[in-house]
Amino acid sequence: MFGRSVYFLTMKMRRSERIVGVTKILIDNPYKLISLNYFTERFEAAKSTISEDLSIIKRVFNIEKMGKVETVAGAAGGVRFIPNKGIKDIKLVIDELCEKLSDSTRILAGGYIYMTDIIFNPNLIDRVGEIFATKFSDLGAEYIITMETKGIPIALMAARALNLPLVSIRKSSKVTEGSVVSINYVTGSSRKIETMSLSRRALPEGAKVIIIDDFMKAGGTAKGMLDLMKEFKAEVLDIGVLVETAQPKEKLVKEYTALVVLEDVDEIEDQIIVKPSSWVENL
Amino acid sequence: MFGRSVYFLTMKMRRSERIVGVTKILIDNPYKLISLNYFTERFEAAKSTISEDLSIIKRVFNIEKMGKVETVAGAAGGVRFIPNKGIKDIKLVIDELCEKLSDSTRILAGGYIYMTDIIFNPNLIDRVGEIFATKFSDLGAEYIITMETKGIPIALMAARALNLPLVSIRKSSKVTEGSVVSINYVTGSSRKIETMSLSRRALPEGAKVIIIDDFMKAGGTAKGMLDLMKEFKAEVLDIGVLVETAQPKEKLVKEYTALVVLEDVDEIEDQIIVKPSSWVENL
Repeated sequence: MFGRSVYFLTMKMRRSERIVGVTKILIDNPYKLISLNYFTERFEAAKSTISEDLSIIKRVFNIEKMGKVETVAGAAGGVRFIPNKGIKDIKLVIDELCEKLSDSTRILAGGYIYMTDIIFNPNLIDRVGEIFATKFSDLGAEYIITMETKGIPIALMAARALNLPLVSIRKSSKVTEGSVVSINYVTGSSRKIETMSLSRRALPEGAKVIIIDDFMKAGGTAKGMLDLMKEFKAEVLDIGVLVETAQPKEKLVKEYTALVVLEDVDEIEDQIIVKPSSWVENL
Repeated sequence: MFGRSVYFLTMKMRRSERIVGVTKILIDNPYKLISLNYFTERFEAAKSTISEDLSIIKRVFNIEKMGKVETVAGAAGGVRFIPNKGIKDIKLVIDELCEKLSDSTRILAGGYIYMTDIIFNPNLIDRVGEIFATKFSDLGAEYIITMETKGIPIALMAARALNLPLVSIRKSSKVTEGSVVSINYVTGSSRKIETMSLSRRALPEGAKVIIIDDFMKAGGTAKGMLDLMKEFKAEVLDIGVLVETAQPKEKLVKEYTALVVLEDVDEIEDQIIVKPSSWVENL
């Protein structure tokens, strides 16, 4: 993965140089434990020197709310970067999201709103993924689960920030998935019967998972995902959704975390009302 | 987006501290032009000091093949991070990919191979996205286009690295997409007629785009995407695919860049042969 450069065979780096390289490697590998030896070899520096570099990075990240640098002691130990977002930063991202979603030109016939551009905006959705990663960082999840298509970008960015594999449930089964488990479920809002399926290979039995999706109205899809997870004997630790609707108040799933609440889409007044969720408000 | 911390009201940072913060901000915002003023205000440092920090970062990234730091002169100028990958790094990623894909347990009935886990592995696919971003960095693209579902992760990571919006073509039209343009296309391998559609809102007319997808056999889907792009008067600058099959040799599209070639899937010998593409070999 990381080659040693000729440069280091001839001269060592100064701290201000080496620390740039160490910072880059940490950020590029969220949640991945990197041994101190890796850094000492790559930068031809003493362990104590690298340790000092890491304390500086730790301190700056802490002060600047740029995430956490965690040290794990022992032979199998090392250091890892945890891209936790600070509260202020989370609120700024959510405010930007609410502002974008409130744009009344998003209103589609039938009271739907167009949000595909937001979901596929990598810069914004990367930060949303980091918010979910921050929220779910201590649960010990092994997989992130989502539902194709629009759940994928958010879930992928959360999976990236948590360094976990993503598993995407499909709405139909494909020949390229091998043997699959399918279940029928009733969409909570339109009461239609749909099928969702997941490849047997995609998830081992008994895994600890977090479900992340883009939208929740009545919660029928989320309920279906919970049922499908039972078929894999998975333990669902939490559910995260980007947008939930205020109505219906009673969802088919009880425990979940939404980031924003779609209060109202008024086609006549040409108005969309979106607010930060109570989880965001109470941070 | 970035709050100033109380810390800086009381004491300034040393170079080795400040440079950690500057590095983090650059990496978090690929291709985004950040003004020098932003850094001078955030870190309460003189312009000359920040310029020197940036030269150090530039030098280290250059030596360590960690990407480029580009300075744009003038009033609207600033600095931006371009996450270009070095040749050695590209080859390492492609070798890892070939090794993973060659695992014969991936063989499915009918000579298909299971690659969903690879496509949804954020750590690997992030690096694949950076390879495409490196390849396509100078084309002046405005959008990345892909096809749901399995194209999305790779295309999203490339879009992230290029700081471009992603537009995902759908296999069916949804009520939440508003008015859509649909076309029929013939899949090159199985000769089935399928429909793909894209929301009018998703892409302005005359945009410069790059298509990125996970797999190409005969190229029918890619051809369909080119046809759909004509409906939007888009200029397709290039096509990138993760895996192409060696057979059929003649594809329905002429210009594209594949990263790896699936030479053979032998169900009887229980063997998959995957090789780096000629583009990778010739780097």
